[in-house]
Amino acid sequence: MMPQLGFLPRRACAALLSQMLRPPRAACLPAVCCHSQVAEVMLTSQLKPHQEKPNFIIKTPKLCEVPFARYLAMNKLKKMKRYQVGKVWRRESPTIVQGRYREFYQCDFDIAGQFDPMIPDAECLKIMCEILSGLQLGDFLIKVNDRRIVDGIFAVCGVPESKFRTICASMDKLDKISWKDVRHEMVAKKGLAPEVADRIGDYVQHHGGISLVEQMLQDPRLSQSEQALEGLKSLKLLFEYLTLFRITEKISFDLSLARGLDYYTGVIYEAVLLQPPAAGEEPLHVGSVAAGGRYDELVAMFNPKGHKVPCVGLSIGVERIFHIVEQRMKTFGEKVRTTETQVFVATPQKNFLQERLKLIAELWDAGIKAEMLYKNDPKLLTQLHYCENTGIPLVVIIGEQEQQEGVIKLRSVATREEEVIKREHLVAEIQRRVSQP
Amino acid sequence: MMPQLGFLPRRACAALLSQMLRPPRAACLPAVCCHSQVAEVMLTSQLKPHQEKPNFIIKTPKLCEVPFARYLAMNKLKKMKRYQVGKVWRRESPTIVQGRYREFYQCDFDIAGQFDPMIPDAECLKIMCEILSGLQLGDFLIKVNDRRIVDGIFAVCGVPESKFRTICASMDKLDKISWKDVRHEMVAKKGLAPEVADRIGDYVQHHGGISLVEQMLQDPRLSQSEQALEGLKSLKLLFEYLTLFRITEKISFDLSLARGLDYYTGVIYEAVLLQPPAAGEEPLHVGSVAAGGRYDELVAMFNPKGHKVPCVGLSIGVERIFHIVEQRMKTFGEKVRTTETQVFVATPQKNFLQERLKLIAELWDAGIKAEMLYKNDPKLLTQLHYCENTGIPLVVIIGEQEQQEGVIKLRSVATREEEVIKREHLVAEIQRRVSQP
Repeated sequence: MMPQLGFLPRRACAALLSQMLRPPRAACLPAVCCHSQVAEVMLTSQLKPHQEKPNFIIKTPKLCEVPFARYLAMNKLKKMKRYQVGKVWRRESPTIVQGRYREFYQCDFDIAGQFDPMIPDAECLKIMCEILSGLQLGDFLIKVNDRRIVDGIFAVCGVPESKFRTICASMDKLDKISWKDVRHEMVAKKGLAPEVADRIGDYVQHHGGISLVEQMLQDPRLSQSEQALEGLKSLKLLFEYLTLFRITEKISFDLSLARGLDYYTGVIYEAVLLQPPAAGEEPLHVGSVAAGGRYDELVAMFNPKGHKVPCVGLSIGVERIFHIVEQRMKTFGEKVRTTETQVFVATPQKNFLQERLKLIAELWDAGIKAEMLYKNDPKLLTQLHYCENTGIPLVVIIGEQEQQEGVIKLRSVATREEEVIKREHLVAEIQRRVSQP
Repeated sequence: MMPQLGFLPRRACAALLSQMLRPPRAACLPAVCCHSQVAEVMLTSQLKPHQEKPNFIIKTPKLCEVPFARYLAMNKLKKMKRYQVGKVWRRESPTIVQGRYREFYQCDFDIAGQFDPMIPDAECLKIMCEILSGLQLGDFLIKVNDRRIVDGIFAVCGVPESKFRTICASMDKLDKISWKDVRHEMVAKKGLAPEVADRIGDYVQHHGGISLVEQMLQDPRLSQSEQALEGLKSLKLLFEYLTLFRITEKISFDLSLARGLDYYTGVIYEAVLLQPPAAGEEPLHVGSVAAGGRYDELVAMFNPKGHKVPCVGLSIGVERIFHIVEQRMKTFGEKVRTTETQVFVATPQKNFLQERLKLIAELWDAGIKAEMLYKNDPKLLTQLHYCENTGIPLVVIIGEQEQQEGVIKLRSVATREEEVIKREHLVAEIQRRVSQP
């Protein structure tokens, strides 16, 4: 059966995982359930590039695209789109660190291949929105930036090129510690001139939408950097596509976003939950719940001939999400729906099993997930309670009167409102209701 | 990534598995993807019952409900419904035996709990139909019988009770070898009196629908067996429910069906593919593709206090199905669809990327799986070829004329027929088309 993950009940685990296993519509791909042993400790040694590069350091990947790139390189694939949910193990001390399981699931989506600019990138952000909305974790925001803008800021502010990566790593801490502390680290520990740090500080406080992109394109200092301009032009195009995808209200161009991983080459993004902890409660401290970006050079590093395959992707922080849900269940007594039933078939009368069976088969055949009690003559109250307890949103009620009149009652469990509809319209009406977001 | 299973290409594997991972609608449950090491060799030793029963032999389970029963017993669960797809390993000699992988997936559905008679049993058969239809393996038939009828036949034919299990095992071979050979085994090897074997032979040739159940209920000899009567009455009720579920044309009451496993206590069933091999080709010899039955006593055997939990379930023979698909791909060049895309968004004109993005987002938001090329100005022919190659059934075509008239073209890839519909009816029309079986 389901292995117990941390303290989250098995059924809740299964329900969440199953939600992730349902591939996003935009992905249009079967979810591949894999079983790949990615011990973090192994990664560093495996990542020895064939061309010896001095100072090539790869950080412990929190959410990582490294196995996918290896796969592409080893199989000489030039184009691929995949959505994957798989089990991963991590070497870690036996105690379960806050929000870190030793065995957990990884869930990611990637698009590899040479395509027209920003179309796959926009799709990744659309998919991220779809997955996070589907998980019903509450309101979220996706911070977007571009690695070339980060590097451009460093260049125009006067960071020596040898310090780019280490300053980037400091900047990556901005979601956890204040700018004051990050500045201190940059200056006192990493030897950055205070005025350089202050110039960076001027930039990283900005966040906004497409107008901020346009403002930065006009910025006298930043526009001197060729790569910053490239990054800003890319983001401008990206925002146009995001507008067409109707998700701009979930997206924030955030100049403080750095993403610690070294392999990103273009757009980078990170989703954070906006829901604050309840008064008097410990804040959840779970960081980002999903992240990703463009990594155009990584595949080449695994390919003996150095062939390049541009990639863009995202990872869902499964263990963090599990941790959040677990906390909420403990703190607020929130429930996780453990069935996917869309409609329950009920009756207030005796001797209606046959009608219920006929009706439920009709719903199943129409692709509707329906359930009923395995009882000849259940009480109506028992049936309605069952729906309330399991979170089934709709009830179809069939009784003698309905049968005589050729109608059916459709009841909303939440509002307890009932509507009488013609029997022959039932399937279409349910399909209409369940397809609404 | 996806591990390679035998010779089936990874993407075909993934597509098939994903089809199985999509839980049947009737199940209404998330598919649980597990990772349970069930080496067959372990099973026998684990199955030592706590009450010592002499002569308790469990056969190597081909398709087995043994881990589920253990789980219920160990967790003291009295009621549960689960659909599971998980990886299983088997100890076997390194060569891959025909149709037997050492690492494969197991896929099963079970309902545990005390419910009104035959309702969950009928649901299992409905689900079996749904899964097998969904896998598009061609026509199939589900043979149904009842363990009590098998035992009743043995009793009234004069089989000594001590020989029931071994004679049942012989009978189980009827789908592979002829009655003549089975009779020979019963008489020559198992010491059954020839006239007893002949009496069994009279029964096992029968197969049919509910009328055969009624005929057997009137059978002067068989109706002397109390347990045969119970089995027949159960099947009569089952057939009534299957009629309401509209699947009787897929079901055959088959008196030759024995199911080798010892733990079945009531209804038993086994699905076979009907498609014959092409002329001149080797027959596929893959046996049944799905099987199951009622096992009311198994949980009690794992429970220290012997508490009973009635169960009924089914297993899909994943490796056999993989093997069949693999053979067909080799023999007939059949393709397995590796995407789930329902609609493709295309344009015959340049500068229509924005319209395509707007349109595709609208489809995604309505829950429709849609795809388009990541290209600013792709050629129409390239787009249509893509649909033909990947098996996408529908194409939405938007061009200047359509845009001006507020319409859209909907093209069927198979028939190449095009229909012009109003833009605002597009989502509803696609939903209508994709929800049709």
